[in-house]
Amino acid sequence: MGGNRADAKFTAKGLAARARIIEHAAELIYTQGVHGTSNEALRKASGVSGSQLTHYFPDKESLVLAVIEWQTQNILTAHAGSSFAGFDTIGALREWAAFFLTHERVCQEGCTLGSLAAEIVKGDLDVRDRLAADFDRWKDVLRAGLDRMREHGRLRGDADPARLANLLLAAMQGGMLLAQIAHDVTPLRDALTAAIDHVQSFEPTQAPPSA
Amino acid sequence: MGGNRADAKFTAKGLAARARIIEHAAELIYTQGVHGTSNEALRKASGVSGSQLTHYFPDKESLVLAVIEWQTQNILTAHAGSSFAGFDTIGALREWAAFFLTHERVCQEGCTLGSLAAEIVKGDLDVRDRLAADFDRWKDVLRAGLDRMREHGRLRGDADPARLANLLLAAMQGGMLLAQIAHDVTPLRDALTAAIDHVQSFEPTQAPPSA
Repeated sequence: MGGNRADAKFTAKGLAARARIIEHAAELIYTQGVHGTSNEALRKASGVSGSQLTHYFPDKESLVLAVIEWQTQNILTAHAGSSFAGFDTIGALREWAAFFLTHERVCQEGCTLGSLAAEIVKGDLDVRDRLAADFDRWKDVLRAGLDRMREHGRLRGDADPARLANLLLAAMQGGMLLAQIAHDVTPLRDALTAAIDHVQSFEPTQAPPSA
Repeated sequence: MGGNRADAKFTAKGLAARARIIEHAAELIYTQGVHGTSNEALRKASGVSGSQLTHYFPDKESLVLAVIEWQTQNILTAHAGSSFAGFDTIGALREWAAFFLTHERVCQEGCTLGSLAAEIVKGDLDVRDRLAADFDRWKDVLRAGLDRMREHGRLRGDADPARLANLLLAAMQGGMLLAQIAHDVTPLRDALTAAIDHVQSFEPTQAPPSA
């Protein structure tokens, strides 16, 4: 990067280098796991020197936290995209499931965030609070959509958005783990299909009044 | 153990030593993770020497495979117990959920098998086939119960036992991961309650004919 390294992280070049490291670290961790990702492999993949790497990420914890944040942001950005139409119809939930079911690496590597979380949650890295907050953010997107569905009369009043959001996210996470272990998408497809069927079972038997 | 070490694994004492190592390894791995479990910690916990440990388990893969088998057997034994009444009523499924929900370590350590699987599935140990087969055995217990429920008319013909078994197991696995990350059982309770509610939605509206 040249110049005063202590200030480099505040320059555009510094930010770009940091982002490049995170992106390559995320890819290596998604493929090989946190324990399978060495500093050497990361230096080679990202093209930064050892001292640059240490400058931006003095320890593995800071790097893993940055990758967690990056993966969370990717997930939330995807959820905020127009493809899921505000997450407040059954059709949007089916689109959401299809998005993950057609992600070609799900059966090899699982969830970009969940597989990372599961690998290290028992380890020494102090990342559990960060993971808990980020999974809450993910769940809140689902819950907010279910809340709107109920407000708009698309779900009956006895639907519990908090419970249904936990069902959807757990079916996603457990289904991805089972698909990853089996190298077969069926457990994930079954779990998401049935979970959304359950949400759909709360549709009113009569169409909601047009407001 | 004394005597001819090469034959020790065939003696009762040898089998007992091997079993003691597995039990302590399972406990250490459940608490600390595979990566957090050193040979030294295992030797101290189980009271065996380094050479004994190497004798029974020449490498980490053989030890981890033995722990996977041990945890699977514990799970299947629990499922075969009388508490779940053959797994073929909604009440039995509620008992099953309650069994895991009241397991005091779920919110700290997750599933005894799933948390181990998730930690190492991306790693170098050649254990994925074993894990896939063992999760299939677990799912088959659930599926067999759902099959019987349908045969006995407790579920309608349009219930899909394979899909519902995947939902139940995914809700369990995903719920346990989320509970472990949050240190809160709510995601697991919500996911299992809603998944079993979904199974229950396939009950016939009229009582099945008494046969």
